[in-house]
Amino acid sequence: MLIIGNPRNQQELSGRWRRAGKRIGLVPTMGSLHEGHMSLVRASLRSCDRTVVSIFVNPIQFGPGEDLAKYPRPFIRDCALLRKAGVDAVFHPSPSAMYPPGFSTSVEVSGTVLSGLCSPFRPGHFRGVATVVAKLFNSVRPDAAYFGAKDFQQAEVVRRMAADLDMGIDVRVLPIVREKDGLAMSSRNAYLSKTGRYAATVLYRALRAGRDKIVSQEGDIRAVKRAIRGVLGREPLARVEYLEISDAGTLEPLSSLGGRVSPTFGGRVLMALAVRVEGTRLIDNMCVRVPLGRYRRQIRRK
Amino acid sequence: MLIIGNPRNQQELSGRWRRAGKRIGLVPTMGSLHEGHMSLVRASLRSCDRTVVSIFVNPIQFGPGEDLAKYPRPFIRDCALLRKAGVDAVFHPSPSAMYPPGFSTSVEVSGTVLSGLCSPFRPGHFRGVATVVAKLFNSVRPDAAYFGAKDFQQAEVVRRMAADLDMGIDVRVLPIVREKDGLAMSSRNAYLSKTGRYAATVLYRALRAGRDKIVSQEGDIRAVKRAIRGVLGREPLARVEYLEISDAGTLEPLSSLGGRVSPTFGGRVLMALAVRVEGTRLIDNMCVRVPLGRYRRQIRRK
Repeated sequence: MLIIGNPRNQQELSGRWRRAGKRIGLVPTMGSLHEGHMSLVRASLRSCDRTVVSIFVNPIQFGPGEDLAKYPRPFIRDCALLRKAGVDAVFHPSPSAMYPPGFSTSVEVSGTVLSGLCSPFRPGHFRGVATVVAKLFNSVRPDAAYFGAKDFQQAEVVRRMAADLDMGIDVRVLPIVREKDGLAMSSRNAYLSKTGRYAATVLYRALRAGRDKIVSQEGDIRAVKRAIRGVLGREPLARVEYLEISDAGTLEPLSSLGGRVSPTFGGRVLMALAVRVEGTRLIDNMCVRVPLGRYRRQIRRK
Repeated sequence: MLIIGNPRNQQELSGRWRRAGKRIGLVPTMGSLHEGHMSLVRASLRSCDRTVVSIFVNPIQFGPGEDLAKYPRPFIRDCALLRKAGVDAVFHPSPSAMYPPGFSTSVEVSGTVLSGLCSPFRPGHFRGVATVVAKLFNSVRPDAAYFGAKDFQQAEVVRRMAADLDMGIDVRVLPIVREKDGLAMSSRNAYLSKTGRYAATVLYRALRAGRDKIVSQEGDIRAVKRAIRGVLGREPLARVEYLEISDAGTLEPLSSLGGRVSPTFGGRVLMALAVRVEGTRLIDNMCVRVPLGRYRRQIRRK
């Protein structure tokens, strides 16, 4: 397994592979790998001839007061995992290789995908994400790139950017991988104490309560949100940052469950939330298909 | 010569060429081709195996009240010129192929290259340029791209963007091509009446006066600007939008000719101006090497 330290060398490597007709997959990560990342790696290994995993804790997507300094960086352990999995190359540039003096370009997505969710709480975050992913895409020039659905908005921002800038890259978004108790896997889970770790299961429990409410068609969108907030409210360590129910295709907040939603995700709605537990910001989400039936009739009655 | 109408087809064509080991050159234009463009085309034909010329009048780089609607589009004539020159493909997407509904990504360069010159007079212009050039680069995936020095700031914005986003593209900037009387070639010269056309030669005459002043070391930067404005002032049809003397490498405005300038352009300074003649906005510029000697001694004395 090769370890590549700067964009130019990665380009040369990818160029060689491309000229040999190889299909290249990229899994962009910030390292501190868990089963969520490894599910992306395996997907790439299955459908590509060469798999590159990038490990780069991207400073420009962290806001002031966020956890850039303390973000875990177990590089040796990560490399061992990736080598064992059969990855071909780890792209691991330094911050100064990515952002040399004079660097002054940014890539920004606007529009509905940034109308809510994490965007208002992390100003500049998605500009930092779009910029670094554009650089990673240009360095690796993959045919396909793999992202996890836990960062649902991030994946949609990347998909939008890749399409808008004609990058010709197939952006794949894979399901959230969860611990046995339902907690979505995240490198940030390591910040939690034992008590906090238990409290963190409230995100998944709350989303399930919301899904049950939608599937049973027992109430309107306010009732669904009440059900989710009810579960969250019973966990004293949880401080809710946002709870939104959006169109899973456009990420626009919904005001009712009866309206048309974009067909992108099979007409699904997205329930998404961010919750702080012991100061650690955790996010989770769930896509649910809204049953035809009562919700549609509600609309027709209006 | 192939005529390609959308990014995906261009990508396929370029992909075929790249797999065959061909070096690809791109000349991005808005059409209405003149000898300035053709000098870029010939440079690409000389050093690349395949040359693509893009013809796209990019709506997002025109501000409100600018000449988007009336910009000349003699596509058939342009194609005849390019076929005769030996160009391999014309990439000619429609605005809706480039900006389909939902398009919402922009690429923006900030920093010193945008500190002056055209930037304050055309808000959003260089964001439009960077965005469309990123798309053209991703569609054509050239090894080298050719730009004219008349749009000096544009070329520097593109160079900065390509480097910052790791595009791996060699951005070449070729000298201004002038009419016999010195007027820099531009598609917009066609807007001028016969009187206006004569008046327009004042830009080059003014720049030469500035160059003579610098080379002869007869005065400081204010004296150079006075010499340039003197020539411009004698042409009643010319309305000066800006006149700047900048570091040709960083595009930062200079306050003296004796200081250090960036080595990018061999320590040259850039004299640049924008002038309206009969409402038509004309730009021109000249790079001059500042003689060691009196200017340096001036500094030492301070």
